[in-house]
Amino acid sequence: MRHFVATMSCLFVIGMFTAVGHAGLRSEAMQYKDGDVVMEGYLVYDDALQGNRPGVLVVHEWMGLNPYVKGRADQLAKLGYIAFAADIYGKGIRPKDANEAGQFAGRYKADRKLLRTRVNAAFDVLKRHALTDPKKRAAIGYCFGGTTVLELARSGADVSGVVSFHGGLETPMPGDAKNIKGKVLALHGADDPYVKPQEVAAFQEEMQNAGVDWYFVSYGNAVHSFTNPEAGNDPKKGAAYNEKADKRSWEEMKAFFKEIFEEK
Amino acid sequence: MRHFVATMSCLFVIGMFTAVGHAGLRSEAMQYKDGDVVMEGYLVYDDALQGNRPGVLVVHEWMGLNPYVKGRADQLAKLGYIAFAADIYGKGIRPKDANEAGQFAGRYKADRKLLRTRVNAAFDVLKRHALTDPKKRAAIGYCFGGTTVLELARSGADVSGVVSFHGGLETPMPGDAKNIKGKVLALHGADDPYVKPQEVAAFQEEMQNAGVDWYFVSYGNAVHSFTNPEAGNDPKKGAAYNEKADKRSWEEMKAFFKEIFEEK
Repeated sequence: MRHFVATMSCLFVIGMFTAVGHAGLRSEAMQYKDGDVVMEGYLVYDDALQGNRPGVLVVHEWMGLNPYVKGRADQLAKLGYIAFAADIYGKGIRPKDANEAGQFAGRYKADRKLLRTRVNAAFDVLKRHALTDPKKRAAIGYCFGGTTVLELARSGADVSGVVSFHGGLETPMPGDAKNIKGKVLALHGADDPYVKPQEVAAFQEEMQNAGVDWYFVSYGNAVHSFTNPEAGNDPKKGAAYNEKADKRSWEEMKAFFKEIFEEK
Repeated sequence: MRHFVATMSCLFVIGMFTAVGHAGLRSEAMQYKDGDVVMEGYLVYDDALQGNRPGVLVVHEWMGLNPYVKGRADQLAKLGYIAFAADIYGKGIRPKDANEAGQFAGRYKADRKLLRTRVNAAFDVLKRHALTDPKKRAAIGYCFGGTTVLELARSGADVSGVVSFHGGLETPMPGDAKNIKGKVLALHGADDPYVKPQEVAAFQEEMQNAGVDWYFVSYGNAVHSFTNPEAGNDPKKGAAYNEKADKRSWEEMKAFFKEIFEEK
């Protein structure tokens, strides 16, 4: 929790780097724009490392840019990447509960062009950063963020690969899969009631038809939100933390990055 | 190919250890029995390592115990495991072509009790070996061998985990999944025409219903036999080598072993 407490304070230290728990880890609350709309994301990297490095965009769940997703960005920074946690909703726009989160996420799910513009705005911040290796850029996302990074790929963004963790897989524009430049990895809870087998089948068919380089992992006994401890422990609710699936999926992402970033 | 040439000769050096290509790698053609039937498997380990170590049973494709599967056993030995490549068909019984392979494999697929007895006989050889860690034993199999290691698990064998590479997933005795003691990983070509979506769904349902700890990976653009270079390069034939899926699935197996053998 040390990281979370430290990084929360960064929201109020805009543009100034702040040391967080890990030796050398530096974070920044970074403002950026999509047209006239101001967003505030979270940038983090290990200052003890020299030179540029692969960059990873991280997209939040429906609850918006919160300590959970910042913690994921911190984990990526500890792995040696520069991580930028996007803010899809806009500065200060944070759902107060699940009801509001559903409304906010629903707006972007219903308007994929807007969603693509928003996520590309965040991706541009990462791309422009001096520490980001211009040839090694990925994006990961959780739930709503999983859906979002798939749309980033479908938008034709110059990304080495994207990873969806328990994300919704459907899109109103499946034909855009032909624009996908990088590799695609989808990590799915086999019992996820929000991402049903027919949605999984349609997604795999979409990837297949477009000739995308993709693979897909189904975790047994896992439901929605399986990576997030805040989802609780009752799979009957449809969303729950699953430690095994969390650890396996994180290792899977690491192996995927090793492949797409050609790390030995 | 150096390994293959060296290990082929082992068939004629029964019971005597033979050094193969890798420094310290030692192999043995090992006879064992299932009732009155004599089998001849292939044991290999790194002699440069001290003490016991996790043991991995390797089960062949429908073509029987051939250089391909011995090469896989060699790869496992290089990773530090003791590997035993089973001989399901019996000593000297090697299909001369695909037609005969279909007949041989078909006999065991139609008689799962016999298949389970045969694979357990091989598993016993591995278990009894002094170099095998008594608490760390896994089994992997390719195609027919994937089907076979799943039956090994369903038989209630005391195995830490099993991995199926492009194996048939169906069983006439799905209720026996309740006997499964270890973890299950199935690695599947998303376009495999021999293991269709409904078979995948039935398998996942079987695992789920029995409360097995399992996960499942589908590799895009991969068909049957995706790990075997001898399958050629034409996916339209239904079986073909796929280098990406081969490498990804091998890394997946390594991560799975790391987890089940609790290697740091």
